Amino acid sequence: MKTISESRCFGGVQGTYSHASTATGTEMRLSVFVPEEATRRALPVVVYLSGLSCTEENFTVKAGAQRYAAELGLIVVAPDTSPRGQDVADDPAYDLGQGAGFYVDALQSPWAPHFRMYSYVAEELPALIAANFPQRPGALGIMGHSMGGHGALVLGLREQALFGSVSALAPIVTPSQVPWGIKAFSAYLGPDAALWRDYDATALIEGGRRRADVLRIDQGEADKFLGEQLRPEVFAAACERAGQPIELRRHPGYDHGYFFVATVIGDHLRHHAELLARR
Amino acid sequence: MKTISESRCFGGVQGTYSHASTATGTEMRLSVFVPEEATRRALPVVVYLSGLSCTEENFTVKAGAQRYAAELGLIVVAPDTSPRGQDVADDPAYDLGQGAGFYVDALQSPWAPHFRMYSYVAEELPALIAANFPQRPGALGIMGHSMGGHGALVLGLREQALFGSVSALAPIVTPSQVPWGIKAFSAYLGPDAALWRDYDATALIEGGRRRADVLRIDQGEADKFLGEQLRPEVFAAACERAGQPIELRRHPGYDHGYFFVATVIGDHLRHHAELLARR
Repeated sequence: MKTISESRCFGGVQGTYSHASTATGTEMRLSVFVPEEATRRALPVVVYLSGLSCTEENFTVKAGAQRYAAELGLIVVAPDTSPRGQDVADDPAYDLGQGAGFYVDALQSPWAPHFRMYSYVAEELPALIAANFPQRPGALGIMGHSMGGHGALVLGLREQALFGSVSALAPIVTPSQVPWGIKAFSAYLGPDAALWRDYDATALIEGGRRRADVLRIDQGEADKFLGEQLRPEVFAAACERAGQPIELRRHPGYDHGYFFVATVIGDHLRHHAELLARR
Repeated sequence: MKTISESRCFGGVQGTYSHASTATGTEMRLSVFVPEEATRRALPVVVYLSGLSCTEENFTVKAGAQRYAAELGLIVVAPDTSPRGQDVADDPAYDLGQGAGFYVDALQSPWAPHFRMYSYVAEELPALIAANFPQRPGALGIMGHSMGGHGALVLGLREQALFGSVSALAPIVTPSQVPWGIKAFSAYLGPDAALWRDYDATALIEGGRRRADVLRIDQGEADKFLGEQLRPEVFAAACERAGQPIELRRHPGYDHGYFFVATVIGDHLRHHAELLARR
């Protein structure tokens, strides 16, 4: 792992690093906050997955998560949202290609060689964290925002032994039924919608996946993507029918941006700290 | 005043606005956070002045100030750091011209027509705030970072009736003696260093300016600009000789960036809230 930058922050260290990823075949960047408490004991880790057009930096500089992570004793890791580079396929649109990996392993050309963000987050990233940071073994949570909320719900439902806590902020919950998801899944996975179900949180619940812990979701009601792209009520209804514990909190007046994320990030990190304390 | 954007944040509203400034003769932008508490009673205001190359946005998205401002009941205002526009003089360097107003009223060509940030912050901005936001009359503090810390100390020492509290993060304290200040003051004010003293916090203290309240300054010890550009010990020594109350806190390991600002902004806003509660 190469160090891009490290800065002291709330007593701990906020760093940006890069490494040669075997999953994506590219150099991947990630941001890691390690509280000062980690110099004395190993700590739980929360992985934060970002949304469309983000890199590892947006969350790191805008969410104000470090204060809460320092108070709660959590290491927080934010990876980039896709492979990047001149040799990596891309699309001029903000919602496909670089910056828009959708946390899937692509099956279609030209995306399949590098767009393997599911394997990256489910396999390579946890091993990388465990090897390089003072993580308490087995204590790993996952959360995300928008496209990253989709990633967190899918990874949390499929990798239950790996992730001890799951939450999402303004997530895409039913990608197979909304424009962002249909566009991305058509490109990355191809036209056979049966192959999309492994990457659709609502379909996973309908297919029988369950977690014992509560899925915590927060959603702003002034979010301009709420009705067309996000539709958390579809996922909440599927969870209720299936008996999956879910806590969907709606926030009047809040939009889709990082001022909303900053407002609720403390509650989310507390949710993870409480669940991961039991692991 | 025109609204560029407004987002709900920690129960209040984080907005970005613009207005036609008479001081600078340009359209000026500013960021304003108004806590929810302001719907019930008028609140004190803290003006935050940013550093070189910043706009009103850097502090707004990176400092995490809104949480503390909501808790403490403070309106926080962050203006842009200079006039801007195609018709405004500029320089390719980051430390002169647009983005580098140094909070002075320029005397020299080509800067004099628009670079009037001292008058903007001392006169136009307070009137604009009072007319457009629920400020408690007379309750106004000023703080800043780096070049903005210089601005806050100079404005606080010269405009004592206006500003009830003053603090600075990693400020330039003796611009007449350091490269950034010598370059900017030579350009904006001309070669006569006697004219620089009105914009030099250390010279103002040496010239007899005093405040009854404590000047609060925080400084990271791993700040790469500490020895050459900032030199807080020069200002602290002048204050001690003069009997000016000062509290200079040094933070081992912290650099010049916004991870440092985020770490100490809560303490600074508390300092302002306590002093402004008496106004």
